Amino acid sequence: MPLTREVGAVNEFGESVKVSIPAERALTVYVDKREVVTLMTLGAQPELLVLGFLRNQRLLQSAQEVHSITVDWEVGAAAVKTHKGIVDIRARTAKRVVTTGCGQGSMFGDLMAEVDKLVLPVASLTQAQLYGIVNAIRLQESTYKSAGSVHACALFRGDELLLFVEDVGRHNAIDTIAGWMWMNGINGADKVFYTTGRLTSEMVIKSAQMGIPIVVSRSGITQMGHEVAAQLGLCAIGRATNTRFLCYTGLERLQLRAPG
Amino acid sequence: MPLTREVGAVNEFGESVKVSIPAERALTVYVDKREVVTLMTLGAQPELLVLGFLRNQRLLQSAQEVHSITVDWEVGAAAVKTHKGIVDIRARTAKRVVTTGCGQGSMFGDLMAEVDKLVLPVASLTQAQLYGIVNAIRLQESTYKSAGSVHACALFRGDELLLFVEDVGRHNAIDTIAGWMWMNGINGADKVFYTTGRLTSEMVIKSAQMGIPIVVSRSGITQMGHEVAAQLGLCAIGRATNTRFLCYTGLERLQLRAPG
Repeated sequence: MPLTREVGAVNEFGESVKVSIPAERALTVYVDKREVVTLMTLGAQPELLVLGFLRNQRLLQSAQEVHSITVDWEVGAAAVKTHKGIVDIRARTAKRVVTTGCGQGSMFGDLMAEVDKLVLPVASLTQAQLYGIVNAIRLQESTYKSAGSVHACALFRGDELLLFVEDVGRHNAIDTIAGWMWMNGINGADKVFYTTGRLTSEMVIKSAQMGIPIVVSRSGITQMGHEVAAQLGLCAIGRATNTRFLCYTGLERLQLRAPG
Repeated sequence: MPLTREVGAVNEFGESVKVSIPAERALTVYVDKREVVTLMTLGAQPELLVLGFLRNQRLLQSAQEVHSITVDWEVGAAAVKTHKGIVDIRARTAKRVVTTGCGQGSMFGDLMAEVDKLVLPVASLTQAQLYGIVNAIRLQESTYKSAGSVHACALFRGDELLLFVEDVGRHNAIDTIAGWMWMNGINGADKVFYTTGRLTSEMVIKSAQMGIPIVVSRSGITQMGHEVAAQLGLCAIGRATNTRFLCYTGLERLQLRAPG
């Protein structure tokens, strides 16, 4: 499936030009034949997206609960089959949705309730590794470079890039990373989560839920993101471009270069 | 209520600096004492946001149905009192949420179902007016300039700026504009909607629902946004910075300068 699409446009000189735009597909998720949500996605890794979505919505406690995920783009559907069903799925998926910094997002209230229980592991990142992360992202061949209008997330061990995900929605990108980690039993303790998007509370909470104690963004941080990161002792680094950055919280996890 | 907040951070030289971040507040909306949604918002115009949200979710058919909207930031609540209640509110607010290009957004499915019924009025914008719009946005004093990490939307008549709204969520910004138009009985036919965010399908549909036939963005367009705009004959202009832009759809509504 192509991740970009060419469309015609007219520029400021009245010239007809061809431009690439990111693909965007509706994927309706059914769990044991019950409709749960429709995700608008670039569609690169739909199974991982669905798995991570269900995990981050905490509809699943373990990846082992899933028998299969079957994606059919002809009808835009992902059919999730569980071994034993999801207890109370009706009530839990009917729960009214709460909104995030991105606009009007997904079930935020429940996530907040769990923040208090999260304890992040000891971890640190050196300033040189941080620059390595920013550089690795810069070198990445991407839909963004060819078409723009997508957000990227990535998972690093130190400055080693493990997974790079783009999507039209940044929530989808982080959910896909969560799905990959869950599927492969990857521990977040020695990982760094990178996003091109803002560090909203939801981004911070999702990182923490994956056990990742350090997040890096090209963009800034919102007030709720800042409050949650401070409360968790999560290291939140924003405005990371070239050699510039701002460490907002969790400074003890960042090993700055010796001055001079 | 301040729209920005100063927090401490440490920069790449290990220096402690003060930086501004946008305020972000949780506002839980109750309609006739029933909890409907929690919006994360900058909080500049909460009453208009709530009114526009309820309109864009089509929970209200007319602003006259509303008796009052009372915002109490102490408890982060907006209490909406209607004259006669909202028919079927329980079923309609329990409806499972569908997601948008921004990630995992609000009730999209219902919006799409109405697209076919929308007919946009004849309208046109000159290239000079388009440049006037981009310049008016550039001159705007804003939370973005001082703190970043917010999206802006604006409403124009030709190149005359009528309303400028920023929020941590771009859906909130457009909902606030919708609320203002509804409250004041403003017709969209001779208006232009501007957004700093991407032209996703939801943005295009919301503009069309407000009867606005021309949208302009600093950013690009997604595939679903493109499809819906083409279907509606809405003029979608993206990548609008300085004198550059791309007109993706509805070119007949844009009066380009004569060449040479």
